[in-house]
Amino acid sequence: MRIEALIFDVFGTCVDWLTPVSRAVAEAVPDADGRAVALDWRAEYDPAMARIRDGARGYVPLETLHRENLDAVLARRGLTCADPATLADAWERLDPWPDTVAGLRRMRDRRIVAPCSNGSIALMVRLARHAGLPWDAILGADLARDYKPAPAVYLACATALRLPPDRVMMVAAHNGDLRAARDAGLATAFVPRPLEYGPGQATDLAPDADWDMVAADFDALARSLEDGP
Amino acid sequence: MRIEALIFDVFGTCVDWLTPVSRAVAEAVPDADGRAVALDWRAEYDPAMARIRDGARGYVPLETLHRENLDAVLARRGLTCADPATLADAWERLDPWPDTVAGLRRMRDRRIVAPCSNGSIALMVRLARHAGLPWDAILGADLARDYKPAPAVYLACATALRLPPDRVMMVAAHNGDLRAARDAGLATAFVPRPLEYGPGQATDLAPDADWDMVAADFDALARSLEDGP
Repeated sequence: MRIEALIFDVFGTCVDWLTPVSRAVAEAVPDADGRAVALDWRAEYDPAMARIRDGARGYVPLETLHRENLDAVLARRGLTCADPATLADAWERLDPWPDTVAGLRRMRDRRIVAPCSNGSIALMVRLARHAGLPWDAILGADLARDYKPAPAVYLACATALRLPPDRVMMVAAHNGDLRAARDAGLATAFVPRPLEYGPGQATDLAPDADWDMVAADFDALARSLEDGP
Repeated sequence: MRIEALIFDVFGTCVDWLTPVSRAVAEAVPDADGRAVALDWRAEYDPAMARIRDGARGYVPLETLHRENLDAVLARRGLTCADPATLADAWERLDPWPDTVAGLRRMRDRRIVAPCSNGSIALMVRLARHAGLPWDAILGADLARDYKPAPAVYLACATALRLPPDRVMMVAAHNGDLRAARDAGLATAFVPRPLEYGPGQATDLAPDADWDMVAADFDALARSLEDGP
């Protein structure tokens, strides 16, 4: 297994979204329970993408879905927000986990690193500038005009880098993301992020398959890649 | 004029291609006049892209054209090369002009910076890693599946960044590139690169229209942008 590029899930794997989005909601909607709204907002994410993956709706970038989903969540809770457009952009101002930036820099010394996120290029560029993520390129949903876990998204990353899928490793904190990447022919690495959903998280606490690599954090993954495959 | 992103022509504007490609040819094809072959090779570039722009051929990435054009130039001159695939990749190992990297870093402090090149994502990623170009994203021909000066290429960059075209400035050493960018609605900056074709260069020595900015090099452009628009 000779890995030439590492592609990363971003929301949850590279950055903490719950803390900054909860804070942004609490600031923009004073009556709201920020954390509850943030979790509700996130829960709308997959159903909204599923309609596009299923072909019921043409491709629109994730910021469009974020904005629509925010409006739906606020309406359902009877909340109003003076500037929902700015609040929707909270997804561009997320904080990296403590090991993310140093780990990415170390991995980038020897291999191409890029996001393979459902976020658009526009969103990923602004998030990378905010969080200091040192990407070589922005890959992901916009390139394929489809959403993970559709195989086209993973394959579009390999094609854009002119690499066979098995020379590309998908890194994620989500077993489902890795399952889809493996089915598409990519190598896989699991890094747990047990606080993504806060202290009570019950999912994705451990690998649920024999992924090619499992590492405690990005620094450990960087070291394993230097010894390893 | 509020510019939020700067997009750059790369071959000639950010990097010197003539010196490194001439050297690579001379090393790979001992009987060849490296500089003459490099200039011939470059001369094949625009006609090859024109067939794709005109619709006579479907989109293929620039590395495919580079390889085909190399084979044609060598055959015409009766030259053989043991490893033409590696020689064709010389376009991924080009050197930045002395002011390029520091200027890009300075411009990046306040604005998004990205290539808008006819090179593919794969080519631009490898070139950026070789030359130390600190891009926020890789934009350009691959995104539009068309070649400059087709307006779709410039517009695809603005769309990918979620910006109106007039918030994006095209930076190039080539008046023709800027003319097409302006026609597509972008702002324009001219930076002369009088040695791109060697000491005898006769074209693009000066701006030939009232581009929004003209600067002697990337450092001067960075300074003008900080004062300016």
